Amino acid sequence: MPNPTAAMLVIGDEILSGRTRDANSNHLAIELTAAGIDLKEVRFVADDHAAIVAAVQALSKAYDTVFTSGGIGPTHDDITADAIADAFGASIDVRDDARAILQAHYDRNGTELNEARLRMARIPDGAALIDNPVSAAPGFTLGNVHVMAGVPSIFNAMVESVLPTLTGGAPVVSRTVRVDRPEGDVAADLGALAKAHPDLSLGSYPFTRDGKYGTNLVVRGQDPAVVDAVVEELVSRLGGISV
Amino acid sequence: MPNPTAAMLVIGDEILSGRTRDANSNHLAIELTAAGIDLKEVRFVADDHAAIVAAVQALSKAYDTVFTSGGIGPTHDDITADAIADAFGASIDVRDDARAILQAHYDRNGTELNEARLRMARIPDGAALIDNPVSAAPGFTLGNVHVMAGVPSIFNAMVESVLPTLTGGAPVVSRTVRVDRPEGDVAADLGALAKAHPDLSLGSYPFTRDGKYGTNLVVRGQDPAVVDAVVEELVSRLGGISV
Repeated sequence: MPNPTAAMLVIGDEILSGRTRDANSNHLAIELTAAGIDLKEVRFVADDHAAIVAAVQALSKAYDTVFTSGGIGPTHDDITADAIADAFGASIDVRDDARAILQAHYDRNGTELNEARLRMARIPDGAALIDNPVSAAPGFTLGNVHVMAGVPSIFNAMVESVLPTLTGGAPVVSRTVRVDRPEGDVAADLGALAKAHPDLSLGSYPFTRDGKYGTNLVVRGQDPAVVDAVVEELVSRLGGISV
Repeated sequence: MPNPTAAMLVIGDEILSGRTRDANSNHLAIELTAAGIDLKEVRFVADDHAAIVAAVQALSKAYDTVFTSGGIGPTHDDITADAIADAFGASIDVRDDARAILQAHYDRNGTELNEARLRMARIPDGAALIDNPVSAAPGFTLGNVHVMAGVPSIFNAMVESVLPTLTGGAPVVSRTVRVDRPEGDVAADLGALAKAHPDLSLGSYPFTRDGKYGTNLVVRGQDPAVVDAVVEELVSRLGGISV
């Protein structure tokens, strides 16, 4: 059976201007691969209501699960929750359960739950809250979309609480063979092995070290025995070392 | 006049599995911002013919310019050139101009231009070549799509040769104000300023330092005088420092 599929939507002007470098998609990719869920697509869009709505609708229709990152804070440019609600035709307002979580958090810190912070309790009707152990303001799940914070420490914590609730497939195992030959010298053998093993993903990644060309060959698949056999064959054909 | 728009397509299984972290989109974002071209969307897709074709068609229709990264090497999983040709209904084969560039390069190095390497001379009809000063194998431009290598040093060099050929708008200037107050305390003032200056982009990015909350407020716009005035107003309203 094929693994379940996933997509990610990274939301924020600061990513598209280059001011901030997205770290969340790589973290999610690693976690999903380990969980046996195939990340098929990632999109970055701006803090733009129409762009978020269109991307959420396209991705939630095309893939089993969607994760979003960014735009759920207290400021005017945090528009993700309202866009997600619109994408699903759900109504949205400050919700009592989310308000209670924020109130308790700010009471403990002696901070006022002002109007700006109350924006973080805006949760679409029908959404389930996602725990935020770092700074309280919850994420949420609506339909097959998990809406999470952009700050990496919070995003990672939210991924940790959402992932165990998802049904994964067979985790993909990955092994690398390093050969001290340029990519163009190993392409024919690699291509032949890829053709013989359509169930595996064989990738090649050139590098230079001390002025010499080399290639990392990466074998990925769900059956560790098959992966190991192909790794052995690469080592014997190309004289590489398994790293 | 609004700035021209751009999108980027990052191609590769290794990005979506988390093995490799994309560095090219951040580099391109910074370069485009400086050139006055608005990067509106980034997508990552797998080494999958149909996925690449669909993404290229959607992005090239929606934005003025599209940049792709990855999948133009010598191995079986390098399928970008053929997918781009399909996306535009162009035919593709080994082209004499690209073959001559590769032949000269490998002759200089005493390396054989074998069948695998010759794949890198597959260029769609009607495409213009993009110079690769690092490892010779050219990128190409077809329609409004610039097809470039995934290896960051080569990608960056290709960006450098393509950018001067594009017409940019007014570069966006960006200034940051750091305030030692949590985001929820500054949201109201920031929102009011954003409303008063719809031509600017005002973003807020929370951080913690030594256990205390702070916020970086970023003001972006095309008119440096207006950006400076809003920065001064933020400093005087919120007691921050311009950094």
